Amino acid sequence: MNRLLWEPLVRAALVEDLGRAGDVTTDAIVPADLRATAFVVARAEGVVAGLAPSLAAFTLYDPGVTVTAHGADGAAVRRGDRLATVEGPARALLTAERTCLNLLGHLSGIATATRRVVDAAAPHGAAIVDTRKTTPGLRALQKAAVRAGGGSNHRFGLDDAVLIKDNHVAVAGGITAAVRAARARAGHLVKVEVEVDTLDQLDEALALPVDVVLLDNFTVDGLREAVRRVRASGRPILTEASGGIRPDDVAAVAAAGVDLISMGWLTHSAPNLDVALDL
Amino acid sequence: MNRLLWEPLVRAALVEDLGRAGDVTTDAIVPADLRATAFVVARAEGVVAGLAPSLAAFTLYDPGVTVTAHGADGAAVRRGDRLATVEGPARALLTAERTCLNLLGHLSGIATATRRVVDAAAPHGAAIVDTRKTTPGLRALQKAAVRAGGGSNHRFGLDDAVLIKDNHVAVAGGITAAVRAARARAGHLVKVEVEVDTLDQLDEALALPVDVVLLDNFTVDGLREAVRRVRASGRPILTEASGGIRPDDVAAVAAAGVDLISMGWLTHSAPNLDVALDL
Amino acid sequence: MNRLLWEPLVRAALVEDLGRAGDVTTDAIVPADLRATAFVVARAEGVVAGLAPSLAAFTLYDPGVTVTAHGADGAAVRRGDRLATVEGPARALLTAERTCLNLLGHLSGIATATRRVVDAAAPHGAAIVDTRKTTPGLRALQKAAVRAGGGSNHRFGLDDAVLIKDNHVAVAGGITAAVRAARARAGHLVKVEVEVDTLDQLDEALALPVDVVLLDNFTVDGLREAVRRVRASGRPILTEASGGIRPDDVAAVAAAGVDLISMGWLTHSAPNLDVALDL
Amino acid sequence: MNRLLWEPLVRAALVEDLGRAGDVTTDAIVPADLRATAFVVARAEGVVAGLAPSLAAFTLYDPGVTVTAHGADGAAVRRGDRLATVEGPARALLTAERTCLNLLGHLSGIATATRRVVDAAAPHGAAIVDTRKTTPGLRALQKAAVRAGGGSNHRFGLDDAVLIKDNHVAVAGGITAAVRAARARAGHLVKVEVEVDTLDQLDEALALPVDVVLLDNFTVDGLREAVRRVRASGRPILTEASGGIRPDDVAAVAAAGVDLISMGWLTHSAPNLDVALDL
Amino acid sequence: MNRLLWEPLVRAALVEDLGRAGDVTTDAIVPADLRATAFVVARAEGVVAGLAPSLAAFTLYDPGVTVTAHGADGAAVRRGDRLATVEGPARALLTAERTCLNLLGHLSGIATATRRVVDAAAPHGAAIVDTRKTTPGLRALQKAAVRAGGGSNHRFGLDDAVLIKDNHVAVAGGITAAVRAARARAGHLVKVEVEVDTLDQLDEALALPVDVVLLDNFTVDGLREAVRRVRASGRPILTEASGGIRPDDVAAVAAAGVDLISMGWLTHSAPNLDVALDL
Amino acid sequence: MNRLLWEPLVRAALVEDLGRAGDVTTDAIVPADLRATAFVVARAEGVVAGLAPSLAAFTLYDPGVTVTAHGADGAAVRRGDRLATVEGPARALLTAERTCLNLLGHLSGIATATRRVVDAAAPHGAAIVDTRKTTPGLRALQKAAVRAGGGSNHRFGLDDAVLIKDNHVAVAGGITAAVRAARARAGHLVKVEVEVDTLDQLDEALALPVDVVLLDNFTVDGLREAVRRVRASGRPILTEASGGIRPDDVAAVAAAGVDLISMGWLTHSAPNLDVALDL
Repeated sequence: MNRLLWEPLVRAALVEDLGRAGDVTTDAIVPADLRATAFVVARAEGVVAGLAPSLAAFTLYDPGVTVTAHGADGAAVRRGDRLATVEGPARALLTAERTCLNLLGHLSGIATATRRVVDAAAPHGAAIVDTRKTTPGLRALQKAAVRAGGGSNHRFGLDDAVLIKDNHVAVAGGITAAVRAARARAGHLVKVEVEVDTLDQLDEALALPVDVVLLDNFTVDGLREAVRRVRASGRPILTEASGGIRPDDVAAVAAAGVDLISMGWLTHSAPNLDVALDL
Repeated sequence: MNRLLWEPLVRAALVEDLGRAGDVTTDAIVPADLRATAFVVARAEGVVAGLAPSLAAFTLYDPGVTVTAHGADGAAVRRGDRLATVEGPARALLTAERTCLNLLGHLSGIATATRRVVDAAAPHGAAIVDTRKTTPGLRALQKAAVRAGGGSNHRFGLDDAVLIKDNHVAVAGGITAAVRAARARAGHLVKVEVEVDTLDQLDEALALPVDVVLLDNFTVDGLREAVRRVRASGRPILTEASGGIRPDDVAAVAAAGVDLISMGWLTHSAPNLDVALDL
Repeated sequence: MNRLLWEPLVRAALVEDLGRAGDVTTDAIVPADLRATAFVVARAEGVVAGLAPSLAAFTLYDPGVTVTAHGADGAAVRRGDRLATVEGPARALLTAERTCLNLLGHLSGIATATRRVVDAAAPHGAAIVDTRKTTPGLRALQKAAVRAGGGSNHRFGLDDAVLIKDNHVAVAGGITAAVRAARARAGHLVKVEVEVDTLDQLDEALALPVDVVLLDNFTVDGLREAVRRVRASGRPILTEASGGIRPDDVAAVAAAGVDLISMGWLTHSAPNLDVALDL
Repeated sequence: MNRLLWEPLVRAALVEDLGRAGDVTTDAIVPADLRATAFVVARAEGVVAGLAPSLAAFTLYDPGVTVTAHGADGAAVRRGDRLATVEGPARALLTAERTCLNLLGHLSGIATATRRVVDAAAPHGAAIVDTRKTTPGLRALQKAAVRAGGGSNHRFGLDDAVLIKDNHVAVAGGITAAVRAARARAGHLVKVEVEVDTLDQLDEALALPVDVVLLDNFTVDGLREAVRRVRASGRPILTEASGGIRPDDVAAVAAAGVDLISMGWLTHSAPNLDVALDL
Repeated sequence: MNRLLWEPLVRAALVEDLGRAGDVTTDAIVPADLRATAFVVARAEGVVAGLAPSLAAFTLYDPGVTVTAHGADGAAVRRGDRLATVEGPARALLTAERTCLNLLGHLSGIATATRRVVDAAAPHGAAIVDTRKTTPGLRALQKAAVRAGGGSNHRFGLDDAVLIKDNHVAVAGGITAAVRAARARAGHLVKVEVEVDTLDQLDEALALPVDVVLLDNFTVDGLREAVRRVRASGRPILTEASGGIRPDDVAAVAAAGVDLISMGWLTHSAPNLDVALDL
Repeated sequence: MNRLLWEPLVRAALVEDLGRAGDVTTDAIVPADLRATAFVVARAEGVVAGLAPSLAAFTLYDPGVTVTAHGADGAAVRRGDRLATVEGPARALLTAERTCLNLLGHLSGIATATRRVVDAAAPHGAAIVDTRKTTPGLRALQKAAVRAGGGSNHRFGLDDAVLIKDNHVAVAGGITAAVRAARARAGHLVKVEVEVDTLDQLDEALALPVDVVLLDNFTVDGLREAVRRVRASGRPILTEASGGIRPDDVAAVAAAGVDLISMGWLTHSAPNLDVALDL
């Protein structure tokens, strides 16, 4: 992900932490000319994500810091592994530490959680995808973390694909009307996905120009039947299971044969990966 | 929290979701003049936080929407409770829904988690406090969510109090030197907290002009002895336990007699509270 | 298009014109309490686009101004037609006039040009689409103007669809390799278009999972043959003609049978529609 | 023009194109470590403008790119001429290409159009000047392009000179009252120009402390007579012809003897100059 | 001055004061529903400036506050005079008070100081003008305050007039060369002022197309002779005295017959006017 | 103070001065490739503050400029002392000069004024502190200037400490109620200061958990008695004198024995220190 897309966020995170007076503790205690070397280390097993923006906290605070990443986003790490070496003024290392670790721990937490469910779904050929249930301001980085964990990305926003949900269907008066209205407005490079809540709705969707069907809150049996009907239709339509799916549910859902499993949990509830800075 | 402090974030979250083309699905399917009423509801038990900024997603998207909050931040809710009523153009309700829920679910998740540990610590007289382990851009809202859950706030940043950590002590050559350097630089309205990792360091700190001692990674027994020594000193110094404390640890830590328990977990790993918009 | 997406642009345009001292002429001559009514009028035949953001120049400058649009984006107008009525402090009308007209004339110029080529292509069933050859900062508004003129939108940016160009093909070592690499990385809601410069490349593309082929700089005869081959393939792949196509070329290109004609000219060279403010 | 004045625009243009996910095509197909050399070339005859901000698109996207401009703003180029060499990571060249070319083509289009009318007016001693009919956000760059084409700049905004138009005169109750009010408010370094629509108004203006008279929508004969009267007055007042003047009108208007010809057409309707990036 | 030009500054000033946590004192002590009325009062004699932006601090903090200004910028006030009435939630009154008063006291201080020197210069027919020696971010408001005090404005920046200083003359190799170079580049609505440090330089300037001569660091006798020579030249050139002129010097400098006296002191050293909020 | 905290201000100050067209004088007269060396010099005796942000004006305008500061913030300088050497393109030196000097003169003026009152208070053991009476946008830099002059900082904003003023006391119904409400809300690292206007209020405050008492508008005798009572209480409470204290009052106030003297005058009324750029 290009620096233009995340540098403002990292800069704002530093300023949020510095406030008006800056790091009063470090500035009072640590000499300006003292240099040090530190290591960003993992304190738990997981998958790394967000190395570039996280480490930029140090160089944005002080361009005199040198950072060297060991490995890259997507790497599996174990407790104690060094993720990066940071060398420069000790003040910068101590002051920017928290901003770096907050971002790195958060994004690596997402990648770590993703990898686990990806591994659970893989034997059945299902892919894991994220949702728009992200944290304000962090969507692109969180979606990159999902990719780092082996997942794939759903829509990045309301504008890059059509996703017709139950309320749209209700307003339009049916799936057919909703799909036709959306297709008429969408450009030729915009795909259309439609949520179906019943097998009847699925049958209706299979006759329409849609690219993906979202099977929302189906039982595993329901998913299996839905997959069967899609395959029977001969249409090149993908199936996506969704609806409060949690990590423990993934294997069973995947076994039902769906192409995709989308999980808001990855971006709104995955716990932090424990990372630290060792001086 | 005044609107000036969170409106830019909510506006940016909407724009992040709208992208360049806006909600292509809703704009294609839902008539511009259709009005609707919807309810923000809890789908799980918990504590609400962030109502004002979350609901502002609707009015920022379309000033023609009317929102009415039921209850206030800090309220305990049960599955099915209505948190707010939203009335206005159906397009606005559908388009701003996700931005509202992302923020509300995240902040209520923090408040919910806080309430649980506050309740565990309360019988022992210990308060729960947050840390600087927050999500970039969301610190002030997350800290307000901690207060909504009954917790108290630690520093908001590097500038509003002195917190001397192990690395500062190492650079200064000891706790005494570090505290003296910090006191000399700090204004008269700035408190000083110092991390101690051993009982010997604690004894050294108790002779210094510090307001709080941070007992980092102490065992419960160690905490108990530390508290005893602080009390024996007769100094008006608070004790704070910290170091990877998780919800299940809180009761035992609190029973050791510390004044404060700080938990990064509250803001970096508390899961989302499930909230939804029912049209 | 939601106000959140264009208000910053209009505000910046006003500030760009006001500079540091504001409208020194109007402030010196026109009394602050003088009110007036003015009409935004067309001085040439065309199609209107950008009414909402253009008229917002008046209300952003002074919330005491009332604007009433006559008609909507996409309306055909003739010389002398009134597009809007503006009532309020005379100072605001005179000061914000140029900002309003600059935006309205520019966007209506695009809509007007689009309508003409849309009309030329329509008898042959071809749609007109825009490109990314837009003016910095104005892309979304320009693309909305193309829609107002009856055209359709190509990609909004580099991120909402895959478009494999000749240089990508060269780097990848062939169309097949390029398409496979892109498909592997693209999410399930991302379409893939590939540029072909020869009929051989077209044949290669027709065997691949692509949604659209971009026929770049083909002669009309070449386009006709390409369309024939796509149809013969039985694949649901759209054909798009591109490459410096100017308004006079459209009818002939459309007659070749392509589905889409993309024209950078619409957004980078369409002349302004003459609009004025009559007090 | 200093970088501080255009860098935010170029940065915003890149972000507008990158969206949230960046260049999904290039990132999928082109290896991160592949380097390439490319040339910015003219595909039509014209005058170059905006080289510095246009080429900065590459270096802002990736500081590892090296750009070398051949020639400078204002240079006449022919089809095939190389305007710049760009060397660096192939990804950066492909991704930033469109942002560079959009800006360069637009500004060079203005310079090219300006040069043509400047050449038409020069034999008669008339200068070509721009107007405030510019594109939102681009005014300073467009005016620099007019200078690159040999034109001169009118006001940059509402604040750097007084320009009394017909509506101001109407409100003030006459040219004399309007000029006096403006002079009383204007600082000592602010010039005053007044629009006159008739020869009677001109005569009135010639008795007033004005620096320039704007002869709006005069016929060529009317302009000639106006120029005669100004000269006869002995006052050091410049004459400016304006009012929907198009390129074909310039020679005749200039021949009438005016000092200045202002043309909104230059900035709101000049077509793009065709430029491309050859890898 | 239009709100678009100062609202961002006032908003930023509030946020600067609120920090991350807002007004912890007021929020803890004052009930949210308590309303109050307060008066902005002068605690010293002076001239008011900046009423609109200053009072906007209250309404930007809470749109439920009503402000009523008594009088307008430029009004002379005495100790105890009420400048405005503010009614609304007591919290808003207490929290926004300082932001309002900081701006109002600063700008009124400038207006007050200006009025005093304007009165000293007026009997001699000299006008008082400001300089570019302003506080970062406040230039336009400070220059409006100078106007409120009866002064006039010099350049607003480096771009709205030519001012040739000693260093420019040195680089150009003389006043004549410098003026010719500047005239060749400047648009037809740009005036030219040139600094002269000696009477010989003045004589050289009087033969050139300049609008104003800046007499820098002349003695009063030197100014008198300079004024004599300008008048003798018959050229419509204004004279401006400058160079560390302080309030006590104004009467003597004005008596020398110059048209303008410019004083950096007005904007960089005028003391605050004491204003307060009485609840 | 870290560059992240002041660079946006310096950049904005440059843009404020450059306007839309930049430095038209220098660009017209000074060749782009002419290099020069200049010195920032003091033209009066004083204390320097703000060197880093002030000098950054040159490098932000043109990274090709090299600046070398002689000495550091807090250094005492005499008339004629060189504060910095600036080498680079002559254009950059001339164009950025004013932005540099405006900031440097303003901040050094504050430091100079602070040093004088610090010296007056020091023999009595009293410290000088600033207030929130600062200029919008400049608070952190002004407070750093106060430190450079030997003063200490009061609150940086409304959020980093509790300061209970007379109006808070009135609303709460007494000092005791106000202090209790504030303590209940404040975090464990937040100090509490309370304003007292009478000795009776002081006695009430001395029984409460407060860190500092603000003695507002006390006579010198009143201060002396207040200090006596605080000492007699045996409580570790600091005393701060405030209320329109001017430089001439400082020695007498300090002699009364207070710990702190706070002066708004330092930041809202200290005159500029005369600094210049000698080429």
